[in-house]
Amino acid sequence: MNNDNEKRSVAGRRNNNFYSTNSNGNNVNRFYNKTRTTKRPYYQRRNTGYNRKPPVRKEVVKPSIKVAFLGGLNEIGKNITLFECMGDMFILDCGMAFPDGEMLGIDLVLPDFTYVRENVDKIKGIIITHGHEDHIGSLPYLLKDVSLPVYGTPLSMGLVGNKLKEHNLLSSAQLNVVRAGDVIKMGCMNVELIHVNHSIPDSVAVAIHSPAGTIVHTGDFKIDFTPATGDVIDLTRFAELGKEGVLALMADSTNAERPGFTKTEAKVRESFEHLFIRAKNKRIIIATFASNVNRIQQILDCAKANGRKVAFSGRSMLNYVQVATELGYMEVSDGTVIDIDSINEYLPEQIVLVTTGSQGEPMSALSRMAYSEHRKVAVGTGDFIIISANPIPGNEKMVGNVIDELLKLGCEVVYESMYEVHVSGHACQEELKVIHNLVRPEFFIPVHGEQKHLKKHADLAESLGMKRDNIFIGDVGNVVELKQGGMKRLGDVISGKVFVDGLGVGDVGSIVLRDRKHLGQDGLIIIVAALDIAEGYIISGPDVISRGFVYVRESEEIIYEVRRIAMEILQEFALKNIHEWNVIKNKIKEEVSKHIFNKTRRTPMILPIIMEV
Amino acid sequence: MNNDNEKRSVAGRRNNNFYSTNSNGNNVNRFYNKTRTTKRPYYQRRNTGYNRKPPVRKEVVKPSIKVAFLGGLNEIGKNITLFECMGDMFILDCGMAFPDGEMLGIDLVLPDFTYVRENVDKIKGIIITHGHEDHIGSLPYLLKDVSLPVYGTPLSMGLVGNKLKEHNLLSSAQLNVVRAGDVIKMGCMNVELIHVNHSIPDSVAVAIHSPAGTIVHTGDFKIDFTPATGDVIDLTRFAELGKEGVLALMADSTNAERPGFTKTEAKVRESFEHLFIRAKNKRIIIATFASNVNRIQQILDCAKANGRKVAFSGRSMLNYVQVATELGYMEVSDGTVIDIDSINEYLPEQIVLVTTGSQGEPMSALSRMAYSEHRKVAVGTGDFIIISANPIPGNEKMVGNVIDELLKLGCEVVYESMYEVHVSGHACQEELKVIHNLVRPEFFIPVHGEQKHLKKHADLAESLGMKRDNIFIGDVGNVVELKQGGMKRLGDVISGKVFVDGLGVGDVGSIVLRDRKHLGQDGLIIIVAALDIAEGYIISGPDVISRGFVYVRESEEIIYEVRRIAMEILQEFALKNIHEWNVIKNKIKEEVSKHIFNKTRRTPMILPIIMEV
Repeated sequence: MNNDNEKRSVAGRRNNNFYSTNSNGNNVNRFYNKTRTTKRPYYQRRNTGYNRKPPVRKEVVKPSIKVAFLGGLNEIGKNITLFECMGDMFILDCGMAFPDGEMLGIDLVLPDFTYVRENVDKIKGIIITHGHEDHIGSLPYLLKDVSLPVYGTPLSMGLVGNKLKEHNLLSSAQLNVVRAGDVIKMGCMNVELIHVNHSIPDSVAVAIHSPAGTIVHTGDFKIDFTPATGDVIDLTRFAELGKEGVLALMADSTNAERPGFTKTEAKVRESFEHLFIRAKNKRIIIATFASNVNRIQQILDCAKANGRKVAFSGRSMLNYVQVATELGYMEVSDGTVIDIDSINEYLPEQIVLVTTGSQGEPMSALSRMAYSEHRKVAVGTGDFIIISANPIPGNEKMVGNVIDELLKLGCEVVYESMYEVHVSGHACQEELKVIHNLVRPEFFIPVHGEQKHLKKHADLAESLGMKRDNIFIGDVGNVVELKQGGMKRLGDVISGKVFVDGLGVGDVGSIVLRDRKHLGQDGLIIIVAALDIAEGYIISGPDVISRGFVYVRESEEIIYEVRRIAMEILQEFALKNIHEWNVIKNKIKEEVSKHIFNKTRRTPMILPIIMEV
Repeated sequence: MNNDNEKRSVAGRRNNNFYSTNSNGNNVNRFYNKTRTTKRPYYQRRNTGYNRKPPVRKEVVKPSIKVAFLGGLNEIGKNITLFECMGDMFILDCGMAFPDGEMLGIDLVLPDFTYVRENVDKIKGIIITHGHEDHIGSLPYLLKDVSLPVYGTPLSMGLVGNKLKEHNLLSSAQLNVVRAGDVIKMGCMNVELIHVNHSIPDSVAVAIHSPAGTIVHTGDFKIDFTPATGDVIDLTRFAELGKEGVLALMADSTNAERPGFTKTEAKVRESFEHLFIRAKNKRIIIATFASNVNRIQQILDCAKANGRKVAFSGRSMLNYVQVATELGYMEVSDGTVIDIDSINEYLPEQIVLVTTGSQGEPMSALSRMAYSEHRKVAVGTGDFIIISANPIPGNEKMVGNVIDELLKLGCEVVYESMYEVHVSGHACQEELKVIHNLVRPEFFIPVHGEQKHLKKHADLAESLGMKRDNIFIGDVGNVVELKQGGMKRLGDVISGKVFVDGLGVGDVGSIVLRDRKHLGQDGLIIIVAALDIAEGYIISGPDVISRGFVYVRESEEIIYEVRRIAMEILQEFALKNIHEWNVIKNKIKEEVSKHIFNKTRRTPMILPIIMEV
């Protein structure tokens, strides 16, 4: 073990924070804190890389580590993973997902926290890899119910804090600011944070040092040798971990389909410089992700160099800029930023407006500009608009529509990939290969992706020499047990999607969604009648009301027919002295549906209502 | 004129059909029919190319040609354009569009035919450039009302005929089969058909020779020097027309954003050959557009060469294959094609299944396979699936979902663009430049595209030297008048979208769609009460029924509150002796909406119903 500690010390010297004290959380230690590491030595393996001989089995029963996935597999979004070793647990990330087109009226999608609640006594805390919504977005909904300490880098904790404030949870929250290089003690597990590049600053990967071995989880990452700000990803540390021996790698699969290397953020700066010149005396409007702090920094720098002022539009944009500036992740020179209300006091060539809406979201600032509904900004021939983002799958059409509308207003719009005004925040295939090669794990679990991404990532690992049996492609709810020489899938845990609609959390389920879809596609027909409670004869009605079916004034005949059918059925049952309302309602539903379908080939929802008088 | 006719004769010799008689339509003539061309000489211009001097004005009033757009601009779909010269009119193409995500429950979108109906006496006929739905799809809906001859190439007319048969309109239809090289007389206009390459065989461009000059309309096209079947696009004819002088060019803008040259269909054949080897002993399933007859031919050829049988799945696939085979556009060797019911009699390595569903359409054959709902085909680890198509914008997510599901079942799926299993049917920028350069028109109107495509195409023309003033970027409903030396926009004509929902055409409008959207997003709450007609007191109810709002059993309190609010309002009005039901209903709507929004931040449709007893 001495030999091993010595190696760590050598590595530790790279870090200026080494041995510095930490005042943020009682569980936090700088990585090479000797007392901790000697107290809890983790199992050290040698024969773990690809193409190496399997380790020699020893007689003793080895501890294992369990990984439970509550999100992030077979989806992009709601990343949340639980690690458990020797009765201790912790949560890695706590994100939300955006609804897909089938989830009508839904605002957010949360993971099902049942498994978390069931195990809350074992859970030592929540570690956040970075401040994106799909990694922090469901924290407020969890912390409403359970009290757990949260650990993350300064920017992540700033953004989490802001979010908790909105939910009135900040005062009760236990937020602990940690930094790359720190180790967070989660019971028997020591979680080391490793600096990575991503599309938001202060992102980390984690190395989970456990009695069962070390698991490396990359979080979201890419390799950027010339990042806009901050350091290059700490590849050396990944290499050291690989040399020490890694039980399993869990790595970001978002771009596993894409060959090559993700372009550097520096490339975007170059593109901006060219475009600022091309814009000449036009006002520049740039739409980008509010969370892409580095991108916004580059715009600020470029604006300053070109003598332009910068204004921000969109609530989340202002929010991110405020947090990033306060925490020193964004540097704003005096007088560069102006309020959006002042932009008309300047000439167009003196302005850069940075806005939300790069995904064509209907209510976003850019969309409102495109449809001439923005209260403060009217766009036209004097505007040079840059969409500094790629459409997330599913948003292509919305983004296209916004671009079309801007063009119709006479704006010049730069959006094509050839202008290189955006680079991804996720590693492409060659970057993934670098990480696999450095970490050389015994097992591999691709994470953060849909099935196709996970599969491609698995193929990539296999192409590097990993055995297919050592790769696990999982799904939400799966639990996998890992130990040296063995990986085993255990029984699933409760998991799923919990929908947020307005203030309601979980009160919209599959039945409500099915009804919404039915109503949205075909509309409805209501047939209402007041019946005598004893005899069952019609006292009033039946009245027929439709919504979303046909324009009634032009389709009186069909409504008249529906009324006639209902009337006949009601009379028939009254004559037969049958007063079971459900039987009558079902009969009306059936007959009216049949008639409507024959006449129109449509299937509106039929809703018979009987009032007892 | 002699000089000119001579030129044409030279060109005519390239065509084997030259001088052949035509028995299909009384208005149809082979292009170089001397009696026609000498009888109606068209105005000949010389100075029309880009960068040339404007023509010298003559004293006489020159005839003009009017172009009215009823579709195809600012949209991909429902292409339909009317040309009018000296009181004669004709229609070019008659397509439909697919609904976008906002058009809930809509099956098809048709153009508004009001302007066609108003001018039906002037219209000499309808010319079809090719058999895609966005060029022929709304024909049945027009021919239901008006009787007009239709002209098109054999495959186009075969597909139109099939479509009209489904609508029971075939017997009354006047379908005229014409061929590239033919000239169709449309009153004073002679419409010449020119062979082009596209993703369906037998596609043509048109040159409209009118007293006002010649307009070249490319239809949908690309330049393929090694097409799978048939000839290369007739570039020579475009060149001749350019030399003779062209008043205006209208050209396909679909791929105007894409640099370079669209790849040849021959490339796809190469890819198939590699993939058939890679598939080894797996069953091959290929999803592609049913209309891509050449693609299917290549699959048939490749299957034969590899000793595999071919089965087809999907209604439209069977339909296209039947028409194309009957007309000789698809060559099926004996014994290659088998019925889908027989596929299980063969080994997987003996089968290629060609299917619809390349766009991830929910009810398509491939989707049903992916979700294990196909009655005849169960897919799994023994299947090698090729998606031989790119997602049309807006379909990306659906296609991705289908791929994910197929992968989950263990299928191998080839879908990425790098495998080159699909090429576009539309010209990219360098091809467009070729056409612009050959045709050298005085005016240019980009067609067949959204705003961004039209703008890019206009930019491209400008980059080749055309003046911006000579380019018209139009919208649906616009009318433009063209004559030598001048282009003028006239007043708009009635145009728009007519929705087909089931059997209903035009009975779903903006109000119904707005209701569908509202119902789909937020659901509804019905409040129904029976009131005494004279006194207004409550006889029964109020009852509260909700659909698509919340799962009622878990939200009894909110439903109870709604009932209480309605009850109070009803009692209040009864006490005040106010019996105006509309006033009461509006009050209930208002108060209930307010309460629901405060409690849930949702806005369901509130539907108060009062029954008079």
